[in-house]
Amino acid sequence: MKYHAKVIVTLRKSILDPQGKAVEHGIHSLGFTSVENVRVGKFIEFDFEARTYEDAKQLCTEVSDKLLANPVMEDFTFVVEEKRERSQ
Amino acid sequence: MKYHAKVIVTLRKSILDPQGKAVEHGIHSLGFTSVENVRVGKFIEFDFEARTYEDAKQLCTEVSDKLLANPVMEDFTFVVEEKRERSQ
Repeated sequence: MKYHAKVIVTLRKSILDPQGKAVEHGIHSLGFTSVENVRVGKFIEFDFEARTYEDAKQLCTEVSDKLLANPVMEDFTFVVEEKRERSQ
Repeated sequence: MKYHAKVIVTLRKSILDPQGKAVEHGIHSLGFTSVENVRVGKFIEFDFEARTYEDAKQLCTEVSDKLLANPVMEDFTFVVEEKRERSQ
């Protein structure tokens, strides 16, 4: 079965986010001065094969934990969906 | 009213994604060889004030279009949620 995964990797709340601060400054410069607590993360999506939905979630957890996120500083969440072929 | 926005910025399908290719190579090295079509994007979240939900969506659209995404190469999607204070 083909699956599609969307992973979001964010810095832990306790870690300072200078990139977020820079974006916040830029947003304020546009005139949107009420914007605050800007945090910047990564978004990664990919397709893959797995036998079951459980296997698919397991693969995503391993890929996120071992490669996409740095577990010391970052958290991750993901969504896995079955990918239907167009012919179906 | 306080709102919380989550914005995802992705490269358009027609634009090559070398960062995604590099991540794909890394995932293959971990042994997950069925993974393909890896695409890397940005995730940005922030809090802000707006009078109505319509105003909140409008602010998100403007911020995404003018600052977070490069409309020539990137697409964006966002979710806006009302932020409830803990005291309520």
